[in-house]
Amino acid sequence: MDRFMTGLEPGRDGLAALVDRALALKAAGRGPDPARPLAGRTVAALFLNPSLRTRASLEAAVVQLGGHLIPLSAGAGLWSLEFAEGAVMDGGAEEHVSDAAATLSRYADAVAVRAYPELVDWKRDREDAAVGAVARHATVPVINLESAMYHPCQGLADLMTWRELLGDDLRGRRLAVAWTWHPKALPMAVPNSVVLMASLFGMDVTLAHPEGYDLDADVLAAATAQAAAAGGTLRVTRDRGAALEHAEVVYARGWRGLPWYGKGSEEYQHKARLSHWTIDDLALARTADAALMHPMPVRRNVEVSDAVLASPRCAVLRQAENRLHVQKALLLKMLGPG
Amino acid sequence: MDRFMTGLEPGRDGLAALVDRALALKAAGRGPDPARPLAGRTVAALFLNPSLRTRASLEAAVVQLGGHLIPLSAGAGLWSLEFAEGAVMDGGAEEHVSDAAATLSRYADAVAVRAYPELVDWKRDREDAAVGAVARHATVPVINLESAMYHPCQGLADLMTWRELLGDDLRGRRLAVAWTWHPKALPMAVPNSVVLMASLFGMDVTLAHPEGYDLDADVLAAATAQAAAAGGTLRVTRDRGAALEHAEVVYARGWRGLPWYGKGSEEYQHKARLSHWTIDDLALARTADAALMHPMPVRRNVEVSDAVLASPRCAVLRQAENRLHVQKALLLKMLGPG
Amino acid sequence: MDRFMTGLEPGRDGLAALVDRALALKAAGRGPDPARPLAGRTVAALFLNPSLRTRASLEAAVVQLGGHLIPLSAGAGLWSLEFAEGAVMDGGAEEHVSDAAATLSRYADAVAVRAYPELVDWKRDREDAAVGAVARHATVPVINLESAMYHPCQGLADLMTWRELLGDDLRGRRLAVAWTWHPKALPMAVPNSVVLMASLFGMDVTLAHPEGYDLDADVLAAATAQAAAAGGTLRVTRDRGAALEHAEVVYARGWRGLPWYGKGSEEYQHKARLSHWTIDDLALARTADAALMHPMPVRRNVEVSDAVLASPRCAVLRQAENRLHVQKALLLKMLGPG
Repeated sequence: MDRFMTGLEPGRDGLAALVDRALALKAAGRGPDPARPLAGRTVAALFLNPSLRTRASLEAAVVQLGGHLIPLSAGAGLWSLEFAEGAVMDGGAEEHVSDAAATLSRYADAVAVRAYPELVDWKRDREDAAVGAVARHATVPVINLESAMYHPCQGLADLMTWRELLGDDLRGRRLAVAWTWHPKALPMAVPNSVVLMASLFGMDVTLAHPEGYDLDADVLAAATAQAAAAGGTLRVTRDRGAALEHAEVVYARGWRGLPWYGKGSEEYQHKARLSHWTIDDLALARTADAALMHPMPVRRNVEVSDAVLASPRCAVLRQAENRLHVQKALLLKMLGPG
Repeated sequence: MDRFMTGLEPGRDGLAALVDRALALKAAGRGPDPARPLAGRTVAALFLNPSLRTRASLEAAVVQLGGHLIPLSAGAGLWSLEFAEGAVMDGGAEEHVSDAAATLSRYADAVAVRAYPELVDWKRDREDAAVGAVARHATVPVINLESAMYHPCQGLADLMTWRELLGDDLRGRRLAVAWTWHPKALPMAVPNSVVLMASLFGMDVTLAHPEGYDLDADVLAAATAQAAAAGGTLRVTRDRGAALEHAEVVYARGWRGLPWYGKGSEEYQHKARLSHWTIDDLALARTADAALMHPMPVRRNVEVSDAVLASPRCAVLRQAENRLHVQKALLLKMLGPG
Repeated sequence: MDRFMTGLEPGRDGLAALVDRALALKAAGRGPDPARPLAGRTVAALFLNPSLRTRASLEAAVVQLGGHLIPLSAGAGLWSLEFAEGAVMDGGAEEHVSDAAATLSRYADAVAVRAYPELVDWKRDREDAAVGAVARHATVPVINLESAMYHPCQGLADLMTWRELLGDDLRGRRLAVAWTWHPKALPMAVPNSVVLMASLFGMDVTLAHPEGYDLDADVLAAATAQAAAAGGTLRVTRDRGAALEHAEVVYARGWRGLPWYGKGSEEYQHKARLSHWTIDDLALARTADAALMHPMPVRRNVEVSDAVLASPRCAVLRQAENRLHVQKALLLKMLGPG
């Protein structure tokens, strides 16, 4: 496997095996692997957007396996990049992303890339041009660190977290993905990856969001088909209360709704009316003693209340830690010996 | 010891032992330690403000001991952070510093943090909210790389430098801390740490500054008590000439005076009248052949003249180098085996 | 050799030996050197301008040899630097570059620096104050990663590429350096280093550019003398067609012409008339089946067409890769054992 872009490339069995390995790595402790299986291997990472967990967990994962990360961040010494194929580059962009990907392939053993969408034109965003160009032009393995469409490392960490919280067999286990108000427009990458990963393993997924916040139709269709094949279900509702009622796990996360693409700040006037979508003690009390998940960074007292984040039911740091372990498993699969 | 925040946590004997070890490390050469006592250990460092010595000396220290540094810099790919406990995070800050600290504790074996104050509201600044939040929420050792109140790694490097310049017994040795004009408002962290460290070891400290530039009353009281216990003295004067006269070491450094907090650029009109506080040959000629110290970066020909910085009495690069050695001693104490 | 600033320091035989070693390193594979000849050695790199190849290839080179790079980037947590000797530093610059160089020499085993010129005042630019100050004040080996005048690591990678494309004896081999239109003002460092390196090895160099784009007279005189001594030639022409006709290698690259220094955007109105200097299929068809070189980043469809960059005659990624190998050879020479 030399591309981890949607997160579904390894297939269901491959993903389960990655989580098994991540659980074993976690049990072994987060310290250095004495065998240093990535000794002398280098991963170049293009961070075209901010990060904390992604940068730090990837660097720690590579280092603990004996390798080295070269982090390259937009606005911190990196050339500005052009993403459009065939562009006449007489504007501000200094280098085409395809040339950056091809160049880094000459130095590093893998290329990782994080590239958010503009959240203005959905048709354009969903083509995932930036990470797609890296995937096409890199001649070494490529890892998607979050694009317009997918956040596969987060999805894999979440799969591991569900396994820890609910046990090895996830069929029929009840996950509520709950949209939250967020002061800034966010991509759909996380909910897409969560819904795809949960449905692939047969969970009963309820997706709760206000009118106008539907996920991409193709993603929903794929998740529905996966759920049917795996013995699970996928439902979409605007009634968050009902969605929470039977949930064993609540996954909170905001995203921009398609009607607001290209409409600038209008969304925020609208969103103000949706601030009751915050996850607080009252919301969590409606559930079946559910755990609370969120991919972080979390807007405290906006997306989730301080009290919920401080409660023993909160699993967000466990999720964050699991990023480290699943990425180690993934790096071993993509770059490890044998 | 799992917190190095004020720099006084190790106690007097502990600090002396750290300097002993740093001197031994310096004698052994700055190259790699063949035993690699931090092999596979990772330190995550949050640089919320610029640095050169701090970043480079910390990275070199960690690497020479066989470990790895993950540097995360504000404005260079890091989320913007919220520092207030209980904040409703609907503004520009993406992540709470407590979540950043807790997350990094899941990946790294220690967290270091540099966070300057705003220099607008002293009551608020002196609470050291940013580094305090990291210290409370990290579950691994924490190192303060300069906050509103303390610059303990600098203080420890200075202690080592005094030992090198003056010998092992610092009691009664004469240090003049001389305020200098600086075109930009600076925090009191360095003079606080210098005065606290020198008084703890019984030096005779004279603090010379213009009217309105008093250090924090609690810091002065603590330093006075420490001096008394250790057989030293602490005096404050506006007569720099007299302060220099008997000094064996002159420590130059500017800081913002409390009356100017919240007053924007007014201070600079005032400061212009204070430009004779520059340390030049004439100033140094008044001393007992004193060495010149400064924590750097130094504003040449504003804080200290080119001629003084080029003279053999100038110890600023020695101080800078000693940052490396004391930080290695500190890392060994906090993270090393045994 | 402890300075690699113009790139000519090793002398002709020394440069040939560096390329021999780089070719051997390339043949051995880009992976880690099991002997880790730079184990525990640290290189501090000041990136005062953006980079991708330079940063990533230097970090990969150091790491593959077992060492460690500390990258410090302007605008990403580094103090702003003053370059003028004797400056009264009461402005925005926080630290003098000489102090930065001296400080880093206390932590690292070599200092590398990339510093572009302002492209406003040629007399000032050509003094190369920033890298010159680093070279004077560093007490460890210094590598120039591109200055106003020279890009010696690029020149060395190009020499290696000519050896690969044309064979070991470069005397009389035909190189056309072709100016290209570029939407942004660029320094002359690359063409200077290309012309100096090619002439030193006796190539027949034709430099084609529009009126007003002459290289520095001293560089041209030095290159002419070198060419004469080595059995080669250096010609300058405004007739690009004729220059291309016999070329075995075409080296495309734009730079700001001296008449436009200090004239802001006026150059761009002028340049628009020069867009036919783009290298496209038609241009390349005039050559003797020439290879196409360019130091990257390349403005696609402005400097060079997509079609030419996609053709098998395009050697730009080979050049980029060779940066890695020559820098490894250089690091071994400057820092390696023995």
